[in-house]
Amino acid sequence: MKLDAAMAAAIEQSERVKGRTYPNPPVGAVILDRDGEIAGVGATAPPGGPHAEVVALRRAGERAVGGTAVVTLEPCNHFGRTPPCVDALLDAGIAEVAFAVADPDPVAAGGAARLAESGVRVSAGVLAADVTGGPLREWLHKQRTGMPHVTWKFATSVDGRSAAADGSSQWITSEAARADVHRRRATADAIIVGTGTVFVDDPALTARLPDGSLADHQPLRVVVGKREISPDATVLNDDSRTMVIRTHNPHEVIKALADRTDVFVEGGPTLAGAFLRAGVIDRILAYVAPILLGGPITAVDDVGVLSIAQAQRWRFDGMTAVGPDVLLSLTPV
Amino acid sequence: MKLDAAMAAAIEQSERVKGRTYPNPPVGAVILDRDGEIAGVGATAPPGGPHAEVVALRRAGERAVGGTAVVTLEPCNHFGRTPPCVDALLDAGIAEVAFAVADPDPVAAGGAARLAESGVRVSAGVLAADVTGGPLREWLHKQRTGMPHVTWKFATSVDGRSAAADGSSQWITSEAARADVHRRRATADAIIVGTGTVFVDDPALTARLPDGSLADHQPLRVVVGKREISPDATVLNDDSRTMVIRTHNPHEVIKALADRTDVFVEGGPTLAGAFLRAGVIDRILAYVAPILLGGPITAVDDVGVLSIAQAQRWRFDGMTAVGPDVLLSLTPV
Ligand SMILES: NC(=O)c1ccc[n+]([C@@H]2O[C@H](COP(=O)([O-])OP(=O)(O)OC[C@H]3O[C@@H](n4cnc5c(N)ncnc54)[C@H](OP(=O)(O)O)[C@@H]3O)[C@@H](O)[C@H]2O)c1
Ligand SMILES: NC(=O)c1ccc[n+]([C@@H]2O[C@H](COP(=O)([O-])OP(=O)(O)OC[C@H]3O[C@@H](n4cnc5c(N)ncnc54)[C@H](OP(=O)(O)O)[C@@H]3O)[C@@H](O)[C@H]2O)c1
Repeated sequence: MKLDAAMAAAIEQSERVKGRTYPNPPVGAVILDRDGEIAGVGATAPPGGPHAEVVALRRAGERAVGGTAVVTLEPCNHFGRTPPCVDALLDAGIAEVAFAVADPDPVAAGGAARLAESGVRVSAGVLAADVTGGPLREWLHKQRTGMPHVTWKFATSVDGRSAAADGSSQWITSEAARADVHRRRATADAIIVGTGTVFVDDPALTARLPDGSLADHQPLRVVVGKREISPDATVLNDDSRTMVIRTHNPHEVIKALADRTDVFVEGGPTLAGAFLRAGVIDRILAYVAPILLGGPITAVDDVGVLSIAQAQRWRFDGMTAVGPDVLLSLTPV
Repeated sequence: MKLDAAMAAAIEQSERVKGRTYPNPPVGAVILDRDGEIAGVGATAPPGGPHAEVVALRRAGERAVGGTAVVTLEPCNHFGRTPPCVDALLDAGIAEVAFAVADPDPVAAGGAARLAESGVRVSAGVLAADVTGGPLREWLHKQRTGMPHVTWKFATSVDGRSAAADGSSQWITSEAARADVHRRRATADAIIVGTGTVFVDDPALTARLPDGSLADHQPLRVVVGKREISPDATVLNDDSRTMVIRTHNPHEVIKALADRTDVFVEGGPTLAGAFLRAGVIDRILAYVAPILLGGPITAVDDVGVLSIAQAQRWRFDGMTAVGPDVLLSLTPV
């Protein structure tokens, strides 16, 4: 198996554990035997459990000897709650290590150098962009900035409306798109809305499976605004925890969530506008449905732009069909 | 060469002559010799000139004997201004014919049957969807309905705005997207705008090359509305012809253009809304820029929809990156 294909498999492994490894990064690993066949796969276990490399090495057993370890992140070189992965790789007799992204954590880094010194062939940067833009995106952002990665997600018709003229909006996007949102919620750490959305929609803000049941992992629900919400609001039910933050300042909200990694802003227009004007959004996910609605209701009203010269400029970093809809992903320029 | 690759080359040929073959369809043809190598390519010549097959056969010469003709449309079987292409193919000693789309014209059809009767191997439907959705889309629509194919084209920010709050909109989309619009104008038969756009923007509505010079082919410019436009309006200059239609009825506009095939509606919001409400739009092209604008100005205001249940439902049939922008294409469901 080629390194790229093995890395793609490692990425897939890491995506399965996203949202459940905090404070560790969601890493995926694949062990190829001497003949290049997959001998074991693994992903980061919940905190206190083994790292991805160790899970994959255990599964590979003796077949790891003389083999190749393909890992989304540079193997760690320090004693945390578990011993260094570099030691595990050397003990297992791995001959070659390929990884996508160097470890930005100065404490954990140095794994590649130690492996090379010990005679292991090391290659870095394999499918790096797929990993930095994919499973490790939020964790790398957190390492770099100390702040959670914030995604603004909205649903819109192709003519830019988030509801019809009478306010009805169920549903603009398809079942497939809504299922995609729930999958993302199930790997997120927190979902933020304004009090207005709670008053008007009374949403549950939980991650649900297609059959309507709750996903294993539920994000923290965050309601922002100064008005008191009703104790009967669905967002306060027992399906997950909920934090109410009585402020209009997006920076305060982000700070209150500083221990989180992957945070979603799901509206409404007032809150989304405030976050966009404050420059605290790191990714936009626009689910665009192939419908026309017209009328006055848009997903955001005021982004602090008066003339075209002041436009907020982003960059498309993804464009995918999701059922009949299109998902556009944007990243700041 | 495989038939699919040869058909792709034939499609490319046909796209070069789009907009210049009226009343004939823009067809492309490739002749493969006995060994499957390209011996000649061709596309429909301007009216009175030879059809695509004949152009390609001439270029192939003796190499056509025992070869394969790959054509986007079923070869014609009737004497029009030129003799039947079926005869030319048989005379040239072609052994096999592959085409994408059957000829819907009862007068010209029957080519496939006659070729088969004459001992030629015939296959239909090669890359058919690429041709019916591509170079022959508008011509097939015209054959089916007797009416021109109408495209509504608009430029928008990812939050659904067609201008910033102060009305400024130059430019929302990139140079690459604007060049794409000009390429499409250069193959279109007419471009329609409302008097409002003429009063506010005073556009030229010509097809221009990247250096600013005029393209070879200019669409008819059509201005719709009851107000008199100034004799000094740029749209009345000598760069192309212009038709002023004093009505608010989209059906009357389409009827006035009944001899055309490929017509674009380029705004503004009032005219686009009227055409969408009247159900006379056959394709939507949305150039989406990775910018946020907010504010009150959208590309269309009233599409006749009050609640989500009445949403105009379309289907995405294309999603392409154009420079930094995304081009979404929609077709009615
Ligand atoms: N299509 C979609 O993707 C989507 C998603 C969510 C909601 N929605 C729609 O959005 C509508 C609700 O709109 P909305 O704008 O009222 O909802 P919102 O943005 O959820 O809530 C607005 C409230 O947020 C608080 N807030 C927090 N930071 C603020 C700031 N910097 N400036 C001002 N207020 C701030 C204020 O609450 P206090 O007044 O309590 O201080 C404000 O009234 C509903 O109809 C809902 O259906 C659509
Ligand atoms: N972003 C884009 O893609 C784009 C493209 C084009 C224009 N624009 C912008 O659009 C703005 C102009 O807006 P607009 O809506 O006034 O322009 P418009 O739609 O071009 O023109 C409106 C006029 O069209 C006539 N009309 C034709 N059929 C009609 C109907 N069924 N109902 C009502 N009127 C009908 C009326 O003219 P009479 O009053 O003469 O009868 C009406 O005043 C400009 O600011 C321009 O920059 C944007």
